Formats: sequence, C-alpha cells, structure tokens
Amino acid sequence: METVEQQNKNISKDDRKGLYKTIFSRRDVRNQFLDTPIPDEVLSRILYAAHYAPSAGFMQPWDFLLIRNSETRKKVHAAFTLAHTTASMFPGEKQDACCDFKLKGILDCALNICVTCDTTRTSPVPFDLPHVSTRDTYSSVCTIQNLWLAARAEGLGVGWVSIIDEETLKAILEIPAHVVPVGYLCVGYVSHFLKKPEMENDGWLPRLDIRNLISFDRWHGQPERSEAGILQQLKQDADFPAAAQEGE
Amino acid sequence: METVEQQNKNISKDDRKGLYKTIFSRRDVRNQFLDTPIPDEVLSRILYAAHYAPSAGFMQPWDFLLIRNSETRKKVHAAFTLAHTTASMFPGEKQDACCDFKLKGILDCALNICVTCDTTRTSPVPFDLPHVSTRDTYSSVCTIQNLWLAARAEGLGVGWVSIIDEETLKAILEIPAHVVPVGYLCVGYVSHFLKKPEMENDGWLPRLDIRNLISFDRWHGQPERSEAGILQQLKQDADFPAAAQEGE
Repeated sequence: METVEQQNKNISKDDRKGLYKTIFSRRDVRNQFLDTPIPDEVLSRILYAAHYAPSAGFMQPWDFLLIRNSETRKKVHAAFTLAHTTASMFPGEKQDACCDFKLKGILDCALNICVTCDTTRTSPVPFDLPHVSTRDTYSSVCTIQNLWLAARAEGLGVGWVSIIDEETLKAILEIPAHVVPVGYLCVGYVSHFLKKPEMENDGWLPRLDIRNLISFDRWHGQPERSEAGILQQLKQDADFPAAAQEGE
Repeated sequence: METVEQQNKNISKDDRKGLYKTIFSRRDVRNQFLDTPIPDEVLSRILYAAHYAPSAGFMQPWDFLLIRNSETRKKVHAAFTLAHTTASMFPGEKQDACCDFKLKGILDCALNICVTCDTTRTSPVPFDLPHVSTRDTYSSVCTIQNLWLAARAEGLGVGWVSIIDEETLKAILEIPAHVVPVGYLCVGYVSHFLKKPEMENDGWLPRLDIRNLISFDRWHGQPERSEAGILQQLKQDADFPAAAQEGE
C-alpha cells in the first residue's frame, strides 16, 4: 500500500511551490503592457501549455489566432469599444464601463490571441446551426487558464477582454459560423505585475471570504461535525495565498 | 530599461518547471480513485488556488459544494447515468456513451465538488430569469482549472463529469434558480496517474498537431514571413510536453 507521500512523489514540494506562486501572482493585466516582442521559444511553450488543457472527449476544440497586424487590432479595438460603451448603458451591466480602459491593451501589447471553440471538431459534418455545448466552450476556457498561468511564469502579462459583440469580432477575424470566439487575450511583457488585482486595489470589490463560499452536501448546507474542520483550516490558512505568492 | 529576464525575476526557472510539470501531468481521472481521505490542509490549499482564479469584474461568482454524503452521491450518480445514457441515443452525442464508465468515480473518490456560478453575485436583486453571461460561467471554469492543477500538484486526481441534465442536479443539491452548476468534480487520491490521457492511450482520438491550430491575424490566415518562426519553433519543441512532464 503506497502512502500518500509516495503517490505524490513525482510532483515535489518545490514544484508545487512554483505552481502556487504562479497561481497567486497571476494578474489580469490592463495598463502595464510593453511592446517588447515575445521570443518564439517563449510563445511556443505557452501555446503547448494551452494545448494540454483538458477537453470533453479529448476533442481539443480550440484554435489560436495570433493577431499582430495593427490594422486588424484597430478594428477589433473599435468594435470592443463600441460594444462596451453600449453595454454600459444598461442597468446591471455597469461592470463593463469600468473595464473600458482595459481595451487599450489590445493596441499596446505585443500580441493578441483569440482562442476559439470549434463546435464541430469531432463531428465531420458541420451543421448550419450547430448546438453550442458548454462542455466544448468550457474546454477552451481551460486552455486559456493554462496559457495564462504559463504566460505568468514566463513573465508575460495577459489581459482577458470580455467579448460582448461576438458577431462583429467574428466578421473582423473571418471566423466561420460554427466556431465560437471564447476569449480575446492581450499578451505581452509588462512594466510590472501588481501585488493585488487592480479591481481589489481600487476598492471596486473586496476579495470574498472563501469560507462563505463553501457548502456541505447541498446548497448552503451546513457541515456535519466531522466535516467542519475545513472551515477552521481555511481560517488558519488565510495568509497562504500571500505567502505562496512570495514563494514561501 | 529592464531586460526581459529582470521583469521575469520573481518567477524562477525552477518555479516555472514546477508549473509545466503540473500542467503536462494533469489527467482527467476516471478509474484510479482510492477512498483515502483528503487532509484538511491539502483541501484548504486547493480551494484557495481555485478562489484566486480570474473573474470578470472581480465578481468571484463561484461557490464550492463539498459532497461527501453517500446518499446524495448515489442520487447524483443515478441522475448522471440516466442523462448520459439518454444523450448517447442521439447522433453526434456518442461522446457521452464512452464516458459512462467515468461516472463510477462519483461513488469511488474521497470527495465530490460541485463548482457553481452565481449569476447575481454582484447585482443584489436576483431576477426571476437572470441572463446567464458566459463571462460569469467562464470565470467559474477558470476556478476549476486552477483547482485541478493544484490538486495534481498535491497528488490528487480530478475527474470532471459533464453535466448534461442540469435541472435534476440542481434539484438534488437544492441549487437555486439563479445559480448555474458549472462543473461536477470527482476528487481524490489515486492508485497512479496515467502517462498519457486515457482517451489518447485508448486510440479514441489522437493529440492534434498544434501547428494545425495556429492562425495568423484571421481564421486560417497564413503567416507573414516575419511571423512564420513560431511554426518552426513548435515543430522543434514537439517533445517539450513530455520532457516537462518528467521535470526536464
């Protein structure tokens, strides 16, 4: 019978530290982009990290559009600006207004990457109106998170711009009907990484107490006596993210 | 002017190795679960990693339902089995049939975690039929990918079971109307991690050549002369994922 430690043997404590450091120091970058070019060997590694994300049925539904052309970027920037301005006119969508200044990254950073989901990848006959399954689009989101972490570890910032007007973006990038643009990313070297997320720094929203997000066995279910230890542990570990970010 | 290396200084090469090793050795686990309990200090770390995922507008829309109760799990297992069997009767959904044996993990593993998305988290008044924005659900997917990587680094396997019949799952877990169950995860120690994804091993689908997934400036756009280097680099780095998985 293997002990837990043995089962875990091929990921060392040091490797784990590297993962946690990356996770806790990852930022959604908006204003700190430099236009320093990204070396191919760095881009290659982050694309491989993205490509090894999980996918439903191993379908690997993603494509990566690498966008450097400045005319294309200007069109994308204009489309996003219009969409975000319009969206912010509706109540409950104020979120978007605050994100407008993030759009500058589209023009400032070294590289834009549009990550898509091909809904017909494993069914050879494309339908006119294929069903967009969340299982498929969620796979492309996992890809983005892998890319984001790898980028951070390579010293590259990533800013994810919310796609509000999907159809206009598809038209600009000539993306066919059966393909969904899942994420539009600004990628590049940065002047610095912020210690905390910008929206937390600015007092936009606080970091939620994780203990309020934990339920047991059903929505808002309270713990059995034997289960309550995790809440105590989470309280005790409140400094873990900050310490892990420093590599402690 | 800082050099690229200086900008990157707080993530060392060793830290990066740990991240890549974790990314490339992460597996979607089905059949290798042990029922060894997960220590609270390990669970706490992976929950914090999840909680520090990116989210649109820093809304942190996720909740984590920790499901240990065996009666609840039996109900969930029965619901998933029914849904997957039904789904596999439709053409184009054959994918699901092959995943049926994955459902066993719901009963076998130490802990089930349902990760949700609260669509009203930042708007205090819940609407009767709130609009489910992909920006919100995608945030909860990023959470899952962070949790998955942290779990792998802690020696824990994760299996993501596709939610096909959302309403039944919501009924079992008493999840309210405005909350979307995004992922249902089996989490636990495993007898071993497979070297390659099970579906790749079994010949279900091959790993796609990443070079076929790269476009330039528009869908299936060809590279400018100055851009083509990345394709050569990706070819040269074909062994990078396998080597990084071994920690090389």
